[in-house]
This record gives sequence, structure tokens and C-alpha cells, in this order.
Amino acid sequence: MTLPVNLLALGDTPDWQAFVKSATVCFVIGLTALGLAGRKKHALRQRQMFMLTVSAWIVIPLFSSMPLLLSDLNLSVTDAFFESISGVTTTGSTVLVGLDRLPDDILLWRSIMQWMGGIGIIGMAVAILPFLRIGGMRLFATESSEWSEKVVPRTNSLARSLVLIYLGLTASCILTYWLLGMNLFEALNHALTTVSTGGYSTSDNSMGQFDSLPILLASTVFMAIGGMPFFLFVRFAHGQRQPLLRDQQVRFYLVLLVIVALLLTVYRLFNESVDPIEAFVHALFNVTSVVTTTGFASQDYSLWGPFAVVIFLFITFVGGCSGSTAGGMKIFRFQLSMLLLREQVRRLLHPHAVFARKYNGRLISDDIVASSVAFSFIFLATLALVTAILGALGLDLVTSLSGAATALTNVGPGLGDTIGPAGNFQPLPDPAKWVLMIAMVLGRLELLSVFVMLSGDFWRS
Amino acid sequence: MTLPVNLLALGDTPDWQAFVKSATVCFVIGLTALGLAGRKKHALRQRQMFMLTVSAWIVIPLFSSMPLLLSDLNLSVTDAFFESISGVTTTGSTVLVGLDRLPDDILLWRSIMQWMGGIGIIGMAVAILPFLRIGGMRLFATESSEWSEKVVPRTNSLARSLVLIYLGLTASCILTYWLLGMNLFEALNHALTTVSTGGYSTSDNSMGQFDSLPILLASTVFMAIGGMPFFLFVRFAHGQRQPLLRDQQVRFYLVLLVIVALLLTVYRLFNESVDPIEAFVHALFNVTSVVTTTGFASQDYSLWGPFAVVIFLFITFVGGCSGSTAGGMKIFRFQLSMLLLREQVRRLLHPHAVFARKYNGRLISDDIVASSVAFSFIFLATLALVTAILGALGLDLVTSLSGAATALTNVGPGLGDTIGPAGNFQPLPDPAKWVLMIAMVLGRLELLSVFVMLSGDFWRS
Repeated sequence: MTLPVNLLALGDTPDWQAFVKSATVCFVIGLTALGLAGRKKHALRQRQMFMLTVSAWIVIPLFSSMPLLLSDLNLSVTDAFFESISGVTTTGSTVLVGLDRLPDDILLWRSIMQWMGGIGIIGMAVAILPFLRIGGMRLFATESSEWSEKVVPRTNSLARSLVLIYLGLTASCILTYWLLGMNLFEALNHALTTVSTGGYSTSDNSMGQFDSLPILLASTVFMAIGGMPFFLFVRFAHGQRQPLLRDQQVRFYLVLLVIVALLLTVYRLFNESVDPIEAFVHALFNVTSVVTTTGFASQDYSLWGPFAVVIFLFITFVGGCSGSTAGGMKIFRFQLSMLLLREQVRRLLHPHAVFARKYNGRLISDDIVASSVAFSFIFLATLALVTAILGALGLDLVTSLSGAATALTNVGPGLGDTIGPAGNFQPLPDPAKWVLMIAMVLGRLELLSVFVMLSGDFWRS
Repeated sequence: MTLPVNLLALGDTPDWQAFVKSATVCFVIGLTALGLAGRKKHALRQRQMFMLTVSAWIVIPLFSSMPLLLSDLNLSVTDAFFESISGVTTTGSTVLVGLDRLPDDILLWRSIMQWMGGIGIIGMAVAILPFLRIGGMRLFATESSEWSEKVVPRTNSLARSLVLIYLGLTASCILTYWLLGMNLFEALNHALTTVSTGGYSTSDNSMGQFDSLPILLASTVFMAIGGMPFFLFVRFAHGQRQPLLRDQQVRFYLVLLVIVALLLTVYRLFNESVDPIEAFVHALFNVTSVVTTTGFASQDYSLWGPFAVVIFLFITFVGGCSGSTAGGMKIFRFQLSMLLLREQVRRLLHPHAVFARKYNGRLISDDIVASSVAFSFIFLATLALVTAILGALGLDLVTSLSGAATALTNVGPGLGDTIGPAGNFQPLPDPAKWVLMIAMVLGRLELLSVFVMLSGDFWRS
């Protein structure tokens, strides 16, 4: 919290008091908690892991909202908390209008929240969720634990590698943006929100402000990297190139980005007179932005025609790879569902045959598939519920449905006149904002980690 | 085909030549096919069962469209075939505008198509699909085959019972409608399309034309019956009351209808000044109409507010019970998914426990759950594809999405200005109509029976 002020002491920091106050409060509360906790170390039990994980994604945004609330922006409590929840969960939906006129310290704080959220989610996906067996992610527990036995025996070392890679990517991204024409402040902010697939920008026009195809392409590459499994980068850095290059999830993900972008390009070429190269770069950028759940926009893609609107609604659900900074349903879940489907179609013709189910060269147990399918089911059920509540609060169908989807998947922009890529979440009624905040946290926690706490079993014994 | 003309010889039959010609063609082709087939009886193999089932739902609408095409309506081939596909699949989407002014023979033919389609789907659901192990329906293969061993040993007898029950329900419905104030022709037509959960009407205002709460209530009851598993009625008729009254699927289905209707009533009472009783009857009628995939409307429910629009979109997917005339995803699939989800949440807390999965008092194998889940997945994937194609053809998001949904689930009306409950499918471009026809047939055949024929394995050896 002191970073925006210290770093920009010579710059535009009208809210330095807000940051200093907030930092002081955090420091005092943190110190008190540390004192109360005592020195004895306790091993966390499974239930405590759940509670810790869930509460972290509520407590951190709570403290992060303080500078916004104390600043000169005159934000309501709802708006300040919306902005910080949307930031820390790397969603990127904003209630702030006129970003271009905001002071630099506030802009930087928004970017920092997303960057912190990004590394937080990687840590959670690699270290915690697989061991809690959430939504088929045990698939990756096996992989990363096997990996850790062979190459780096201790979790500390894995964590250090992940942080170093994250820092390295951020630095490369800053440098690239700067070399391509952004000023240093813009480069810093956008790099922090690109690598974390967050999507906050320094302008209401998002990435459209730079009007530069090279910047869009660079951003596409860094967003795409942010949506890949980070532990594969660690292996890559240790000289194991095959796992990254041959990973089924990564391949499907990259092919999907290109195919959808090509489809949209062809559609636009049929319907408008646009330059093919420019159309493809914009398509690839915006598709990558939504699939990686970043939420930058270079144009109002909802004006590309009804096919584009439908496609952007659907790719909102997809999400990036597991173990990345991306949200959404995740590529591997679609792949597991396709495996299940292919198996069932075969079974219709050969009822008594036995099929081996393989993913990335490994046999996949029924349990992992069931767990992944259960995730998809709870995701769609929650989507329906959130959409219905937003509808009851008076939002139209497209806003309700795309708003629920974009919050649960942590993408950012929705569809329709209000919350579309050219819109803003400011005009929504306060209760709708609170519902969306809950959806963002639910989505970031892969839903099941929260719902398990709602079951009676959790609190018994 | 001769029925509309013969029955109404004294009435409004300007198209009698069209019907006689069509009947003659059918008779000649049928007789020729019978002659070519020879007298030897062959047992059908599994692949032939698939081909027979799928082709029946294309050939029957093809012949059924002839009277429409030859009539004075001047329909295009696309429109005639759309109307007959929508009829035979009991979808009920119509391209005919000004139903109130149409001749009686055409109106009656539309109703007869739906009535035939209704008994056809029950037969298919009871006799064919379970043995083909489609989408978890083996769940009911066990039940009905066990039942047939105990009570009625031969399939013929089961078929006779089903037809008798269907006839009895239709007769009761005609009588009820007539007693409540419809004229005999209206009562006949609406009974044929109520019991089959089809939804064709004799007026552009659908059931709204009668402006009678008792008729709406009676229609609600008969639609609800049409959406229940018909083999349970057979057992009921044989004195076994428990299976129907205690059936988990039936209970969930009835409770769902009432709860959703209550929710909509409360929502409307908050937002408009409406009579509570009237609001509840209209809500219950229209909810039942959509959940049972009938598609009657008593009012333009899309004017009830955004919450109602969202709810009607979602209940379009639900569908009735398995083994009924209803389409959609079917109640039991949602119940199996919920079982799976509950099991997975428990497993998060007790990773090594073993859970018994029960439905209607029976243990459910992993295979049945997997098969049901595979259906849901292929359903949603097809929905996405159909929506995207409709979007590419220029339809807006709400029309594309609700059109794809209403066709795949055989409901009838969609949402939005064009195809909403007060609208008509006439203005859609021809290619969109063909896409919707394919979706109707796919939905009616529970998708997998068609997709299995697309797999390479099907045609090999």
C-alpha cells in the first residue's frame, strides 16, 4: 500500500494520506493478530485449509478497499469494495468512470491489487486446491507432486520458482510495452494487469487507447502466457521442455484461440470492409483477452455483429488452463467431458468393451472425471441462480446472463449496453453489485471450496 | 390424412384434394415398400434400430408436410416442412400467421401431427431408447423390463396399454375442454396438442383466446400429466399406485412447477397491481407449458419483467419426466447430477468413504450417471453450436440462444421480439429455419442416437 505513494512520490499522489492511513491500520491489525496467535506452530487440518483459503479472498479485498474508500474519489462502500474485489480476484470489472482523469496512485493501486491476486491464485491452484480435491484438480496434484519429488523436493522451492517466473514475466512485459511506445507508467500498470490476466487499464478505452497493433500482439502473447499452467514454466526453466510443448491442455488452448479468432475474422470480412490483418489482430487480442479472463478490450467487439456477440458470450465460460492466473471453467474440464462423451458414444456400440481413459499420457480415474463434472454442474447451477437474482433486481436478460458469467469466470466485461466492452458497472444497482462480488469470489475459489463449507458435514464433529 | 377431410366433410375443407392426393401417394409408396420388403421377418440389429429410429423422425414429417404443401396456403417447401417437423416432434413453433383465419382441415391436421408425434415419442422412450442405452435411460430399461416380467409379459400388451391410456387421456381432455366452454372443434384440437405436449393452437393468441381461468387450470393438469412417465400410468391402471405416487422424478417435477409459479407470482405482485389468484393461475399455466415443453401461452409472459424472462429461459431446458411426451433435458438427469454433486462434496470432506448412490430406492451404477452426464454435455455443446450458427445467420443473441434452446428441447416459443410467446417463426431467414428443424429432430431423438451414427465406429464392419 505504501508502494504507490513511495514509487510515485514525485508524481501524482493526491491520495497519499489515504494510503498511509490504510497501511497503518493494516500494520497495527496484522501485528496484533501476530501477537495473539502465539509462537507455537500448528499443522493446518483440512477444514482449516478450506476456511483459510476462503477467508483470504474476503479479508484481502476488504483491506485493499481502504485506500479507495479514504481517497478523494468519494466512492460509496459498495463501489470501493466492488473495485477491490474485482481487482484482487483479477476480474477487472470496474465501477470507476473517467479512468483517464484519475490520479496515478489510485490507478497503480488497482493494478497492484490485480497483480497480487494473480500470484495468489497460482499459489492456491498449485499448492492448495489439488490437495483439497476440488473439481478434478487432483489431476494436477499428481503431476506437481510427482514433479516436486523428482526435481525440487520442497514446496518452498516451488513457491520461489513460481514467484521468480511471475516477476520475470512482469518485467519482460513492462519492457516490451515500453519499447513498443507506452510511457513507463502505462507500461508498468498494463504489465501488472496483463500477466495476472486482470484487465484493469489506465483508460476507459482500455488497450484501445494506444491504437497500436504491435502493442495488441505483445499483449496477446503475455495474456496467453498468463493463461498457461505455471508449474510447466518451472519445469521448462529447469530444462524439461517436453511437458510444456506436448501438454494436451496447452495445445488445445492455443489452437482454440487461433480458430475462434479466424472464425471472427472471416465473419467480419464477409460483413464489413475491414483490413484482414487488422481484423485478425483485433479478433485474436479480444478473444485471448476473454478466454484468458483478462478483460482488456481494443474495440467494442459487440458491434462486430450478432455472431460475435454469441461467440464472446460462449468463450466467457471457457477460461484458461488450470494452474494459471486465468479463471473460468478451464480447458481441461472441457477435455475431460469430451473424453467422457467419446467413451459413452463408443459404449453405445460396444456395450461390454472396456476403455482406457487417458489424458496427457496418464490414465484418468472415474473419480477425477466425476469431480470435474460435478464442478461444471455446480458452475452452471450457480450461473442460473446468479442470473435469476440479477433479473429479479431489474437487469435485462443479456446483462443478467453475461454479468453472472463474467463475474463467475473473472473475465471482466459483459455484454449489452450497460456492462459491455464499452460500458461500465457503475450504473448497476447496489444489490446487483454485491451479488456480482459474491460471484467473483465464488468463481475465484472454484465454487466447491465455498459450497463445501455450506454442507452440514463440514461443521459436524 | 383422410381424417381431417372425412371428419369434417360437412365443414370447412377447402383443401380436401390436397389431403386425398397426399394420402394416395402415401398409400402407393407404403404398398410398394411392403411389396419390396418380402414376407420374411428379420430381427433388427442394434445399428438398424438406430437407423430406423432416426429415419422415422425424418420420413414421417416429410410425408406429413405434403398436405400443407399441396394446400391453398401457398407455403414454401421450407415453411411446409418446418411446420410438419415442428408438429411431429411436438415442438409447436409455427410459421403460419393468422391461424384464426385458417381452414379447419389444416388446423386439425396440425393437431393430428402433434398427437401422432406424442404417442410416437412415448413408444420410443419406453421401447427403444432404454435398450440403446441412450443418455442414462437404461435407468428406466431396468424398471420397465422388470415391470413387464411381473405384470404384462409381452411388449405388445405394454404397447396396447400405453395407447389405451393415451386415448383415454385425450378423450377426457376433449370432454373437459368442451364442458368448460370450448366448442367441439376447439376442444378436439387443443386436447390433441395438450396431451401430446405439442402446443399448436387454433388461434394466434394460443390459449389466451379463451380468457378463462378454469380452461387454463384444466390445461395445466393435462399438460402436467403429459409430462409424467407413462409406464407409471400403466402400473397405476393395474392397481400399483405406489410407484406413481412415490416416484422421485414425478415428485420433484410437480414441486418444481409449483415453486417456480409461486416465485413468478410473488415477483409480479411486487411489481404490478395484479389479482393474486389470476397471477398464480397464469404463472402456473405458462410455467407448466414450458417445463412440459408444450408451448401454449396465455399471455406474453416476456412482459412480466426481466426476472420472468430469465426464468422462462432457464425452465426451457428442464423438460418433463423421462418416458413422457415431453422433451428437454429431463428431470431425472438433473437429479442424477445433483446426486453426483452431493457425493463429490461429501468426498471432499471424507476422501476415503464409500457412498451408495440411490435413486427411487435403487442403486445407480457409475455407468448410468456417466451416460446421463454425457447427454447433458452433448446437449449444451449442441446448444452452443446451434446458437452460434443462428448468430452467424444474423439473429440477435436472445433470439439465437432462446431459438436454439426451444428447438432442441421441443418447447415451441422462444424469447425476444421475433420468436417470443407473442411472436412467430415466419420472419426468420430460411437457413435459420432449416437449422432449427435439425435441432428439433436432434432434441426429439435425445441427440446421442443421432451422434452415434456420425461416429466412424458405427459404419465400420
